[in-house]
Amino acid sequence: MRILGIDPGLRTTGFGVVDVVGADVRYVASGTIRTEHLDTRALPARLKILFDGIGEVVERYQPTCASVEIVFVNVNPQSTLLLGQARGALVTALVCANLPVAEYTALQMKQAVAGHGRAHKDQIQEMVKRLLHLPGLPGPDAADALGLAITHAHAGKSMALLAGANGVGGNGKIRYRDGRSQ
Amino acid sequence: MRILGIDPGLRTTGFGVVDVVGADVRYVASGTIRTEHLDTRALPARLKILFDGIGEVVERYQPTCASVEIVFVNVNPQSTLLLGQARGALVTALVCANLPVAEYTALQMKQAVAGHGRAHKDQIQEMVKRLLHLPGLPGPDAADALGLAITHAHAGKSMALLAGANGVGGNGKIRYRDGRSQ
Repeated sequence: MRILGIDPGLRTTGFGVVDVVGADVRYVASGTIRTEHLDTRALPARLKILFDGIGEVVERYQPTCASVEIVFVNVNPQSTLLLGQARGALVTALVCANLPVAEYTALQMKQAVAGHGRAHKDQIQEMVKRLLHLPGLPGPDAADALGLAITHAHAGKSMALLAGANGVGGNGKIRYRDGRSQ
Repeated sequence: MRILGIDPGLRTTGFGVVDVVGADVRYVASGTIRTEHLDTRALPARLKILFDGIGEVVERYQPTCASVEIVFVNVNPQSTLLLGQARGALVTALVCANLPVAEYTALQMKQAVAGHGRAHKDQIQEMVKRLLHLPGLPGPDAADALGLAITHAHAGKSMALLAGANGVGGNGKIRYRDGRSQ
């Protein structure tokens, strides 16, 4: 299983790719898709950069599934609307590439990576570096994206264990969740 | 010029196509793209339906530009987030089809179609029916979409007049606007 994690943002979207090999989660690639060089009014053009950027990453690394952060209502409602549109373009790119999309909150990601939901950005960067045996700290957006990929890798394992214990399905099954759910 | 108007919605997206022939605006087609048959949790799948639906409409009617409603922050922030994501998928579909995207508020559309910004849904339906010489009332979502196409047709004319009067450019030029602008 190769997982593409996505930390959605209109200015900067982080991505991270990991392989799940047995009990191991191995680093493949990470980076950002940036639209900040464009005029803030050019929303359609910025959405296209995000859509095409995901297409390129999928083409290059051939992930088998995606793990995207569930975004929340921001203090600034207009920012929420812009972030929603960015996320819409990103998720559309993933489903257009026929990838199953799993969704996790930032809280779930932090718990999976750092063991508690109040972890700061730099703690996530440090834990992702350790978990994936990276030579240096990943950038904050890439770290969050790798964290989402790791979260899905762990969720897959838990579901596999659960399936083994209960004799029911669920091994790596993707559950779709909308932004409304926690 | 053939204009594709879009009234964005996660459950129901309205679309309307008109031709601008000289001073005339002529009806070509209208309808809705619906995702309400899908589980409300299946957001990625619903975004794909919207993206693919726009692709089909563009393929079939070959518009030369698009006119999309600027959505606003709703009373319910979670609905805003969902609407934002739907709009993100729709605008992405338009730019992927290489269509220039013009954006108007509901207020601008109502002013262009009914002459005042407080027009009700049924007044928009009635005015769109009259302006396009339709045999019957269009549905509310299709009427809004046709109204957005008409708004852009009128804006193009105003800009053409302005360009003629001032000797400056602007004839049918598309200005990009993000959700932040009014």
